[in-house]
Amino acid sequence: MSEYIEHDLDDNSVGIVEKKLYTFAETPKEMLLDSGGRLGPITLAYETCGTLNAAKSNVILVLHALSGDSHVAGCYTPQDEKPGWWDNMVGPGKGIDTNKYFVVCSNIIGSCMGSTGPCAINPKTVMPFGLDFPVVTIGDMVEAQKELMDHLGIKKILAVIGGSIGGMQVLEWCVRYPQMVTAAIPLASTTRHSALAIAFNEVARQAIMADPKWNNGEYYFGPKPDLGLAVARMIGHITYLSDESMRL
Amino acid sequence: MSEYIEHDLDDNSVGIVEKKLYTFAETPKEMLLDSGGRLGPITLAYETCGTLNAAKSNVILVLHALSGDSHVAGCYTPQDEKPGWWDNMVGPGKGIDTNKYFVVCSNIIGSCMGSTGPCAINPKTVMPFGLDFPVVTIGDMVEAQKELMDHLGIKKILAVIGGSIGGMQVLEWCVRYPQMVTAAIPLASTTRHSALAIAFNEVARQAIMADPKWNNGEYYFGPKPDLGLAVARMIGHITYLSDESMRL
Repeated sequence: MSEYIEHDLDDNSVGIVEKKLYTFAETPKEMLLDSGGRLGPITLAYETCGTLNAAKSNVILVLHALSGDSHVAGCYTPQDEKPGWWDNMVGPGKGIDTNKYFVVCSNIIGSCMGSTGPCAINPKTVMPFGLDFPVVTIGDMVEAQKELMDHLGIKKILAVIGGSIGGMQVLEWCVRYPQMVTAAIPLASTTRHSALAIAFNEVARQAIMADPKWNNGEYYFGPKPDLGLAVARMIGHITYLSDESMRL
Repeated sequence: MSEYIEHDLDDNSVGIVEKKLYTFAETPKEMLLDSGGRLGPITLAYETCGTLNAAKSNVILVLHALSGDSHVAGCYTPQDEKPGWWDNMVGPGKGIDTNKYFVVCSNIIGSCMGSTGPCAINPKTVMPFGLDFPVVTIGDMVEAQKELMDHLGIKKILAVIGGSIGGMQVLEWCVRYPQMVTAAIPLASTTRHSALAIAFNEVARQAIMADPKWNNGEYYFGPKPDLGLAVARMIGHITYLSDESMRL
Protein backbone atom coordinates (compact mmCIF):
# COMPACT_ATOMS: atom_id res chain seq x y z
CA MET A 1 0.00 0.00 0.00
CA SER A 2 1.06 3.59 -0.50
CA GLU A 3 2.30 4.81 2.84
CA TYR A 4 1.92 8.55 2.33
CA ILE A 5 -0.96 10.68 1.18
CA GLU A 6 -0.33 14.41 0.94
CA HIS A 7 -3.09 16.97 0.63
CA ASP A 8 -4.15 20.28 2.05
CA LEU A 9 -5.72 20.64 5.46
CA ASP A 10 -9.49 20.63 5.16
CA ASP A 11 -12.19 22.05 7.42
CA ASN A 12 -12.43 18.76 9.27
CA SER A 13 -8.83 18.72 10.40
CA VAL A 14 -8.02 17.82 13.97
CA GLY A 15 -6.04 21.08 13.95
CA ILE A 16 -2.76 21.65 15.73
CA VAL A 17 -1.22 18.55 17.27
CA GLU A 18 1.91 18.09 19.32
CA LYS A 19 4.54 15.39 19.22
CA LYS A 20 4.81 13.99 22.74
CA LEU A 21 7.57 11.85 24.20
CA TYR A 22 7.30 9.15 26.85
CA THR A 23 10.44 7.62 28.29
CA PHE A 24 10.54 4.38 30.26
CA ALA A 25 12.78 1.35 30.85
CA GLU A 26 15.37 3.49 32.60
CA THR A 27 18.55 1.84 33.87
CA PRO A 28 18.59 -0.69 35.52
CA LYS A 29 15.05 -1.64 34.38
CA GLU A 30 15.83 -1.93 30.68
CA MET A 31 13.28 -3.67 28.49
CA LEU A 32 13.99 -7.34 27.75
CA LEU A 33 13.84 -7.75 23.97
CA ASP A 34 12.73 -10.84 22.06
CA SER A 35 16.37 -11.22 21.00
CA GLY A 36 17.41 -11.64 24.64
CA GLY A 37 19.15 -8.27 24.66
CA ARG A 38 18.13 -5.32 26.78
CA LEU A 39 17.31 -1.78 25.70
CA GLY A 40 16.80 1.27 27.84
CA PRO A 41 15.99 3.97 28.43
CA ILE A 42 13.41 3.90 25.64
CA THR A 43 11.62 6.99 24.38
CA LEU A 44 8.44 6.67 22.35
CA ALA A 45 7.15 9.57 20.25
CA TYR A 46 3.35 9.65 20.10
CA GLU A 47 0.47 11.93 19.26
CA THR A 48 -3.18 12.00 20.28
CA CYS A 49 -6.36 13.51 18.79
CA GLY A 50 -9.86 13.66 20.20
CA THR A 51 -10.82 13.36 23.86
CA LEU A 52 -10.49 10.38 26.16
CA ASN A 53 -13.89 9.78 27.72
CA ALA A 54 -14.37 9.25 31.46
CA ALA A 55 -14.70 5.48 31.09
CA LYS A 56 -11.54 5.40 28.91
CA SER A 57 -13.52 3.24 26.51
CA ASN A 58 -13.12 5.18 23.27
CA VAL A 59 -9.43 4.56 22.48
CA ILE A 60 -8.30 3.83 18.94
CA LEU A 61 -4.62 2.93 18.61
CA VAL A 62 -3.24 3.68 15.13
CA LEU A 63 0.02 1.96 14.17
CA HIS A 64 2.07 3.31 11.27
CA ALA A 65 3.79 1.63 8.33
CA LEU A 66 7.59 1.31 7.94
CA SER A 67 8.36 4.84 6.81
CA GLY A 68 5.56 6.50 8.75
CA ASP A 69 5.58 7.99 12.20
CA SER A 70 3.39 9.21 15.04
CA HIS A 71 2.12 12.20 13.05
CA VAL A 72 -1.15 10.68 11.89
CA ALA A 73 -3.36 13.78 11.48
CA GLY A 74 -3.46 17.55 11.88
CA CYS A 75 -0.52 19.95 11.65
CA TYR A 76 2.26 21.08 13.97
CA THR A 77 1.79 24.79 13.19
CA PRO A 78 -0.86 26.84 11.37
CA GLN A 79 1.68 27.39 8.56
CA ASP A 80 2.50 23.67 8.31
CA GLU A 81 1.66 22.60 4.73
CA LYS A 82 1.95 18.87 5.23
CA PRO A 83 -0.60 17.29 7.57
CA GLY A 84 -0.23 13.87 9.18
CA TRP A 85 -0.10 10.84 6.91
CA TRP A 86 -3.72 9.75 7.50
CA ASP A 87 -5.33 13.17 7.77
CA ASN A 88 -8.06 12.20 5.31
CA MET A 89 -9.08 9.34 7.60
CA VAL A 90 -8.63 10.77 11.10
CA GLY A 91 -10.61 13.85 12.13
CA PRO A 92 -14.03 15.16 13.15
CA GLY A 93 -16.67 13.38 11.06
CA LYS A 94 -14.08 11.29 9.23
CA GLY A 95 -13.73 7.49 9.12
CA ILE A 96 -11.96 7.51 12.44
CA ASP A 97 -14.16 10.20 13.97
CA THR A 98 -12.32 12.26 16.58
CA ASN A 99 -15.67 13.61 17.78
CA LYS A 100 -16.21 10.11 19.14
CA TYR A 101 -12.82 8.52 19.57
CA PHE A 102 -9.55 9.23 21.33
CA VAL A 103 -6.85 8.39 18.80
CA VAL A 104 -3.32 7.47 19.85
CA CYS A 105 -0.59 7.01 17.25
CA SER A 106 2.71 5.68 18.55
CA ASN A 107 5.97 5.83 16.64
CA ILE A 108 7.68 2.43 16.77
CA ILE A 109 10.94 1.76 18.55
CA GLY A 110 13.73 1.38 15.98
CA SER A 111 12.34 4.32 14.03
CA CYS A 112 14.26 7.48 13.26
CA MET A 113 11.20 9.69 13.78
CA GLY A 114 11.49 10.51 17.46
CA SER A 115 11.47 7.12 19.15
CA THR A 116 14.62 5.36 20.29
CA GLY A 117 16.30 3.85 17.25
CA PRO A 118 19.69 3.51 15.53
CA CYS A 119 20.11 7.30 15.27
CA ALA A 120 19.57 7.75 19.03
CA ILE A 121 22.58 8.25 21.25
CA ASN A 122 23.94 5.05 22.75
CA PRO A 123 24.51 5.88 26.44
CA LYS A 124 27.56 3.61 26.47
CA THR A 125 29.41 5.35 23.62
CA VAL A 126 27.68 8.77 23.55
CA MET A 127 27.47 8.24 19.78
CA PRO A 128 24.53 7.19 17.60
CA PHE A 129 23.81 3.45 17.98
CA GLY A 130 24.06 2.75 14.25
CA LEU A 131 24.54 -0.97 13.71
CA ASP A 132 24.96 -1.45 17.47
CA PHE A 133 21.23 -0.89 17.89
CA PRO A 134 19.71 -4.25 18.84
CA VAL A 135 17.39 -6.09 16.47
CA VAL A 136 13.83 -5.33 17.49
CA THR A 137 10.82 -7.46 16.61
CA ILE A 138 7.18 -6.63 15.97
CA GLY A 139 6.61 -8.03 19.47
CA ASP A 140 9.12 -5.59 20.98
CA MET A 141 7.30 -2.72 19.27
CA VAL A 142 4.03 -3.88 20.80
CA GLU A 143 5.61 -4.24 24.26
CA ALA A 144 6.78 -0.63 24.02
CA GLN A 145 3.27 0.47 22.99
CA LYS A 146 1.86 -1.46 25.93
CA GLU A 147 4.12 0.59 28.22
CA LEU A 148 2.67 3.74 26.63
CA MET A 149 -0.91 2.49 27.16
CA ASP A 150 -0.09 1.81 30.82
CA HIS A 151 1.38 5.31 31.11
CA LEU A 152 -1.84 6.78 29.65
CA GLY A 153 -3.95 4.68 32.03
CA ILE A 154 -5.61 2.83 29.14
CA LYS A 155 -6.70 -0.71 29.97
CA LYS A 156 -8.98 -1.39 26.99
CA ILE A 157 -8.54 -0.46 23.33
CA LEU A 158 -11.69 -0.16 21.23
CA ALA A 159 -9.76 -0.79 18.00
CA VAL A 160 -6.14 -1.31 17.02
CA ILE A 161 -5.62 -0.37 13.37
CA GLY A 162 -2.58 -0.24 11.11
CA GLY A 163 -1.27 -1.04 7.64
CA SER A 164 1.76 -3.00 6.46
CA ILE A 165 4.19 -3.29 9.41
CA GLY A 166 1.50 -1.47 11.42
CA GLY A 167 -0.90 -4.29 10.57
CA MET A 168 1.64 -6.82 11.82
CA GLN A 169 1.66 -4.98 15.15
CA VAL A 170 -2.16 -5.14 15.19
CA LEU A 171 -1.97 -8.92 14.86
CA GLU A 172 0.72 -9.10 17.55
CA TRP A 173 -1.45 -6.99 19.89
CA CYS A 174 -4.19 -9.60 19.48
CA VAL A 175 -1.78 -12.41 20.33
CA ARG A 176 -0.07 -10.73 23.31
CA TYR A 177 -2.95 -8.77 24.83
CA PRO A 178 -6.23 -10.25 23.54
CA GLN A 179 -8.10 -9.11 26.63
CA MET A 180 -7.21 -5.48 25.89
CA VAL A 181 -8.25 -5.42 22.22
CA THR A 182 -11.95 -5.17 21.33
CA ALA A 183 -11.49 -4.89 17.56
CA ALA A 184 -8.48 -5.39 15.30
CA ILE A 185 -8.14 -3.88 11.82
CA PRO A 186 -4.95 -5.08 10.10
CA LEU A 187 -4.62 -3.61 6.59
CA ALA A 188 -2.39 -4.80 3.72
CA SER A 189 -0.51 -6.98 6.18
CA THR A 190 0.50 -10.55 6.92
CA THR A 191 1.32 -12.98 9.71
CA ARG A 192 4.42 -14.10 7.83
CA HIS A 193 6.45 -13.02 4.85
CA SER A 194 6.63 -15.04 1.65
CA ALA A 195 10.02 -15.89 0.14
CA LEU A 196 9.25 -13.28 -2.52
CA ALA A 197 8.70 -10.53 0.06
CA ILE A 198 11.85 -11.53 1.95
CA ALA A 199 13.80 -11.37 -1.32
CA PHE A 200 12.51 -7.89 -2.16
CA ASN A 201 13.37 -6.62 1.32
CA GLU A 202 16.87 -8.08 1.06
CA VAL A 203 17.48 -6.35 -2.28
CA ALA A 204 16.29 -3.06 -0.76
CA ARG A 205 18.75 -3.48 2.11
CA GLN A 206 21.55 -4.38 -0.30
CA ALA A 207 20.77 -1.30 -2.41
CA ILE A 208 21.31 0.94 0.63
CA MET A 209 24.42 -0.92 1.75
CA ALA A 210 25.89 -0.73 -1.77
CA ASP A 211 25.88 3.07 -1.49
CA PRO A 212 29.37 4.13 -0.32
CA LYS A 213 27.69 6.81 1.81
CA TRP A 214 26.13 3.97 3.82
CA ASN A 215 29.60 3.77 5.41
CA ASN A 216 28.80 0.57 7.30
CA GLY A 217 25.90 2.29 9.03
CA GLU A 218 27.92 5.22 10.36
CA TYR A 219 26.48 8.03 8.26
CA TYR A 220 24.99 10.16 11.00
CA PHE A 221 27.55 12.96 10.82
CA GLY A 222 28.15 12.88 7.08
CA PRO A 223 26.29 12.59 3.78
CA LYS A 224 23.43 10.09 3.82
CA PRO A 225 23.10 7.08 1.46
CA ASP A 226 20.35 8.87 -0.46
CA LEU A 227 20.93 7.16 -3.81
CA GLY A 228 20.83 3.67 -2.32
CA LEU A 229 17.74 4.64 -0.33
CA ALA A 230 16.09 5.92 -3.53
CA VAL A 231 16.63 2.56 -5.23
CA ALA A 232 15.32 0.75 -2.14
CA ARG A 233 12.25 2.98 -2.15
CA MET A 234 11.60 2.23 -5.83
CA ILE A 235 11.61 -1.47 -5.02
CA GLY A 236 9.23 -0.77 -2.15
CA HIS A 237 6.83 1.17 -4.34
CA ILE A 238 6.66 -1.65 -6.89
CA THR A 239 5.69 -4.07 -4.14
CA TYR A 240 2.92 -1.74 -2.92
CA LEU A 241 1.17 -2.36 -6.25
CA SER A 242 0.15 -5.58 -7.94
CA ASP A 243 0.67 -6.49 -11.56
CA GLU A 244 -3.11 -6.28 -11.95
CA SER A 245 -3.39 -2.80 -10.45
CA MET A 246 -0.64 -1.51 -12.76
CA ARG A 247 -2.74 -2.60 -15.75
CA LEU A 248 -5.74 -0.50 -14.71
CA MET B 1 14.21 -18.00 -16.18
CA SER B 2 17.65 -18.74 -14.82
CA GLU B 3 20.09 -17.75 -17.51
CA TYR B 4 23.08 -19.82 -16.48
CA ILE B 5 23.54 -23.48 -15.74
CA GLU B 6 27.01 -24.62 -14.77
CA HIS B 7 28.10 -28.22 -14.75
CA ASP B 8 30.97 -30.42 -15.81
CA LEU B 9 31.51 -31.47 -19.38
CA ASP B 10 29.99 -34.88 -20.01
CA ASP B 11 30.69 -37.54 -22.62
CA ASN B 12 28.11 -36.02 -24.91
CA SER B 13 29.79 -32.65 -25.11
CA VAL B 14 30.19 -31.02 -28.49
CA GLY B 15 33.85 -30.72 -27.45
CA ILE B 16 36.10 -27.80 -28.28
CA VAL B 17 34.37 -24.84 -29.89
CA GLU B 18 35.72 -21.57 -31.19
CA LYS B 19 34.35 -18.06 -30.91
CA LYS B 20 34.13 -16.71 -34.45
CA LEU B 21 33.71 -13.12 -35.55
CA TYR B 22 31.89 -11.80 -38.60
CA THR B 23 32.16 -8.13 -39.51
CA PHE B 24 29.83 -6.33 -41.90
CA ALA B 25 28.21 -2.93 -42.46
CA GLU B 26 31.58 -1.37 -43.17
CA THR B 27 31.70 2.38 -43.89
CA PRO B 28 29.89 3.77 -45.89
CA LYS B 29 27.37 0.89 -45.80
CA GLU B 30 26.49 1.18 -42.11
CA MET B 31 23.37 -0.63 -40.92
CA LEU B 32 20.24 1.51 -40.65
CA LEU B 33 18.86 1.02 -37.13
CA ASP B 34 15.20 1.14 -36.08
CA SER B 35 16.08 4.38 -34.27
CA GLY B 36 17.02 6.00 -37.58
CA GLY B 37 20.69 6.06 -36.63
CA ARG B 38 23.41 4.16 -38.41
CA LEU B 39 25.93 1.71 -36.97
CA GLY B 40 28.96 0.21 -38.65
CA PRO B 41 31.18 -1.59 -38.96
CA ILE B 42 29.38 -4.24 -36.89
CA THR B 43 31.07 -7.37 -35.57
CA LEU B 44 29.00 -10.33 -34.41
CA ALA B 45 30.52 -13.06 -32.24
CA TYR B 46 29.05 -16.47 -32.98
CA GLU B 47 29.70 -20.15 -32.49
CA THR B 48 28.57 -23.27 -34.30
CA CYS B 49 28.25 -26.95 -33.39
CA GLY B 50 27.34 -29.92 -35.56
CA THR B 51 27.62 -30.12 -39.33
CA LEU B 52 25.69 -28.18 -41.93
CA ASN B 53 24.20 -30.72 -44.36
CA ALA B 54 24.49 -30.38 -48.11
CA ALA B 55 20.94 -29.07 -48.47
CA LYS B 56 21.59 -26.55 -45.67
CA SER B 57 18.28 -27.67 -44.18
CA ASN B 58 19.35 -28.65 -40.66
CA VAL B 59 20.06 -25.22 -39.12
CA ILE B 60 18.98 -24.38 -35.58
CA LEU B 61 19.57 -20.79 -34.55
CA VAL B 62 19.92 -20.39 -30.77
CA LEU B 63 19.45 -16.88 -29.36
CA HIS B 64 20.75 -16.06 -25.89
CA ALA B 65 19.20 -14.19 -22.94
CA LEU B 66 20.35 -10.75 -21.73
CA SER B 67 23.48 -11.77 -19.90
CA GLY B 68 24.31 -14.73 -22.13
CA ASP B 69 26.51 -14.90 -25.19
CA SER B 70 27.41 -16.98 -28.22
CA HIS B 71 29.04 -19.69 -26.10
CA VAL B 72 26.09 -22.08 -26.03
CA ALA B 73 27.86 -25.47 -25.63
CA GLY B 74 31.25 -27.15 -25.42
CA CYS B 75 34.47 -25.64 -24.13
CA TYR B 76 37.15 -23.36 -25.49
CA THR B 77 40.04 -25.53 -24.28
CA PRO B 78 40.35 -29.04 -22.82
CA GLN B 79 41.15 -27.41 -19.45
CA ASP B 80 38.12 -25.09 -19.61
CA GLU B 81 35.97 -25.86 -16.56
CA LYS B 82 32.91 -23.88 -17.60
CA PRO B 83 31.08 -25.12 -20.68
CA GLY B 84 28.60 -23.07 -22.71
CA TRP B 85 25.43 -21.92 -20.98
CA TRP B 86 23.17 -24.56 -22.59
CA ASP B 87 25.61 -27.46 -22.67
CA ASN B 88 23.04 -29.80 -21.11
CA MET B 89 20.70 -29.13 -24.02
CA VAL B 90 23.01 -28.87 -27.03
CA GLY B 91 25.21 -31.84 -27.97
CA PRO B 92 25.25 -35.27 -29.55
CA GLY B 93 22.11 -37.15 -28.46
CA LYS B 94 20.84 -34.18 -26.44
CA GLY B 95 17.62 -32.21 -26.87
CA ILE B 96 19.16 -30.17 -29.64
CA ASP B 97 21.03 -33.10 -31.18
CA THR B 98 24.23 -32.00 -32.89
CA ASN B 99 24.39 -35.40 -34.61
CA LYS B 100 21.44 -34.14 -36.64
CA TYR B 101 21.48 -30.37 -36.49
CA PHE B 102 23.84 -27.53 -37.27
CA VAL B 103 23.55 -25.15 -34.36
CA VAL B 104 24.40 -21.47 -34.68
CA CYS B 105 24.43 -19.20 -31.62
CA SER B 106 24.91 -15.52 -32.31
CA ASN B 107 25.86 -12.95 -29.69
CA ILE B 108 23.56 -9.93 -29.98
CA ILE B 109 24.72 -6.47 -31.03
CA GLY B 110 24.86 -4.21 -27.99
CA SER B 111 26.42 -7.01 -25.96
CA CYS B 112 29.79 -6.79 -24.27
CA MET B 113 30.64 -10.42 -25.12
CA GLY B 114 32.42 -10.03 -28.42
CA SER B 115 29.83 -8.29 -30.60
CA THR B 116 29.80 -4.57 -31.25
CA GLY B 117 28.38 -2.83 -28.17
CA PRO B 118 29.00 0.08 -25.80
CA CYS B 119 32.44 -1.24 -24.83
CA ALA B 120 33.56 -1.39 -28.47
CA ILE B 121 35.77 1.39 -29.83
CA ASN B 122 33.82 4.20 -31.47
CA PRO B 123 35.71 4.86 -34.74
CA LYS B 124 34.93 8.57 -34.43
CA THR B 125 36.51 9.04 -30.99
CA VAL B 126 38.82 6.01 -30.77
CA MET B 127 37.33 5.52 -27.29
CA PRO B 128 34.69 3.06 -26.05
CA PHE B 129 31.20 4.11 -27.20
CA GLY B 130 29.77 4.15 -23.68
CA LEU B 131 26.51 6.11 -23.66
CA ASP B 132 27.19 7.22 -27.26
CA PHE B 133 26.33 3.72 -28.44
CA PRO B 134 23.00 3.97 -30.25
CA VAL B 135 19.85 2.40 -28.83
CA VAL B 136 19.36 -0.97 -30.52
CA THR B 137 16.05 -2.81 -30.73
CA ILE B 138 15.18 -6.49 -30.85
CA GLY B 139 14.59 -5.89 -34.56
CA ASP B 140 18.12 -4.54 -34.99
CA MET B 141 19.50 -7.65 -33.29
CA VAL B 142 17.56 -9.82 -35.74
CA GLU B 143 18.75 -7.77 -38.75
CA ALA B 144 22.33 -8.36 -37.65
CA GLN B 145 21.65 -12.09 -37.27
CA LYS B 146 20.11 -12.09 -40.77
CA GLU B 147 23.40 -10.66 -42.07
CA LEU B 148 25.20 -13.55 -40.38
CA MET B 149 22.79 -16.09 -41.94
CA ASP B 150 23.45 -14.57 -45.38
CA HIS B 151 27.19 -14.76 -44.72
CA LEU B 152 26.85 -18.46 -43.84
CA GLY B 153 24.74 -19.06 -46.97
CA ILE B 154 21.75 -20.13 -44.90
CA LYS B 155 18.37 -19.41 -46.53
CA LYS B 156 16.13 -21.55 -44.33
CA ILE B 157 16.21 -22.10 -40.58
CA LEU B 158 14.69 -25.32 -39.25
CA ALA B 159 14.11 -23.78 -35.80
CA VAL B 160 14.83 -20.49 -34.09
CA ILE B 161 14.94 -20.95 -30.32
CA GLY B 162 15.71 -18.64 -27.42
CA GLY B 163 14.67 -17.61 -23.92
CA SER B 164 13.84 -14.22 -22.41
CA ILE B 165 15.30 -11.52 -24.70
CA GLY B 166 16.33 -14.43 -26.96
CA GLY B 167 12.68 -15.42 -27.18
CA MET B 168 11.76 -11.90 -28.19
CA GLN B 169 14.22 -12.22 -31.07
CA VAL B 170 12.58 -15.55 -32.02
CA LEU B 171 9.24 -13.75 -32.31
CA GLU B 172 10.83 -10.91 -34.28
CA TRP B 173 12.41 -13.42 -36.67
CA CYS B 174 8.91 -14.77 -37.38
CA VAL B 175 7.59 -11.26 -38.10
CA ARG B 176 10.51 -10.09 -40.26
CA TYR B 177 11.47 -13.30 -42.08
CA PRO B 178 8.53 -15.71 -41.85
CA GLN B 179 9.57 -17.45 -45.08
CA MET B 180 12.95 -18.35 -43.52
CA VAL B 181 11.67 -19.80 -40.25
CA THR B 182 10.20 -23.31 -40.23
CA ALA B 183 9.69 -23.57 -36.47
CA ALA B 184 9.85 -21.01 -33.68
CA ILE B 185 10.47 -21.86 -30.01
CA PRO B 186 10.24 -18.75 -27.80
CA LEU B 187 10.80 -19.60 -24.13
CA ALA B 188 9.93 -17.49 -21.04
CA SER B 189 9.36 -14.52 -23.30
CA THR B 190 6.78 -11.95 -24.36
CA THR B 191 5.68 -9.74 -27.24
CA ARG B 192 5.45 -6.75 -24.90
CA HIS B 193 6.46 -5.84 -21.38
CA SER B 194 3.96 -5.24 -18.59
CA ALA B 195 4.18 -2.10 -16.47
CA LEU B 196 5.53 -4.31 -13.68
CA ALA B 197 8.38 -5.63 -15.85
CA ILE B 198 9.21 -2.11 -17.05
CA ALA B 199 9.31 -0.94 -13.43
CA PHE B 200 11.66 -3.74 -12.38
CA ASN B 201 13.98 -3.01 -15.30
CA GLU B 202 14.02 0.68 -14.45
CA VAL B 203 14.97 -0.03 -10.83
CA ALA B 204 17.77 -2.31 -12.05
CA ARG B 205 19.09 0.49 -14.28
CA GLN B 206 18.82 3.00 -11.43
CA ALA B 207 20.71 0.63 -9.12
CA ILE B 208 23.65 0.57 -11.55
CA MET B 209 23.52 4.31 -12.18
CA ALA B 210 23.42 5.01 -8.41
CA ASP B 211 26.84 3.36 -8.09
CA PRO B 212 29.49 6.16 -8.20
CA LYS B 213 31.68 3.80 -10.23
CA TRP B 214 29.05 3.95 -13.00
CA ASN B 215 30.64 7.33 -13.73
CA ASN B 216 27.96 8.31 -16.25
CA GLY B 217 28.75 5.25 -18.33
CA GLU B 218 32.48 5.94 -18.63
CA TYR B 219 33.87 3.12 -16.51
CA TYR B 220 35.83 1.25 -19.14
CA PHE B 221 39.28 2.24 -17.91
CA GLY B 222 38.53 2.27 -14.19
CA PRO B 223 36.72 0.28 -11.53
CA LYS B 224 33.38 -1.14 -12.65
CA PRO B 225 30.01 -0.44 -10.95
CA ASP B 226 30.02 -3.96 -9.50
CA LEU B 227 27.92 -3.17 -6.41
CA GLY B 228 25.16 -1.50 -8.43
CA LEU B 229 25.27 -4.36 -10.91
CA ALA B 230 24.96 -6.88 -8.05
CA VAL B 231 21.78 -5.17 -6.81
CA ALA B 232 20.41 -5.06 -10.37
CA ARG B 233 21.17 -8.74 -10.77
CA MET B 234 19.34 -9.55 -7.51
CA ILE B 235 16.25 -7.78 -8.85
CA GLY B 236 16.63 -9.76 -12.07
CA HIS B 237 16.86 -13.07 -10.26
CA ILE B 238 13.68 -12.38 -8.30
CA THR B 239 11.83 -11.74 -11.56
CA TYR B 240 13.08 -15.02 -13.05
CA LEU B 241 11.03 -16.80 -10.38
CA SER B 242 7.36 -16.54 -9.51
CA ASP B 243 5.88 -16.25 -6.05
CA GLU B 244 4.45 -19.75 -6.58
CA SER B 245 7.79 -21.29 -7.56
CA MET B 246 9.46 -19.78 -4.48
CA ARG B 247 6.95 -21.65 -2.30
CA LEU B 248 7.86 -25.06 -3.74
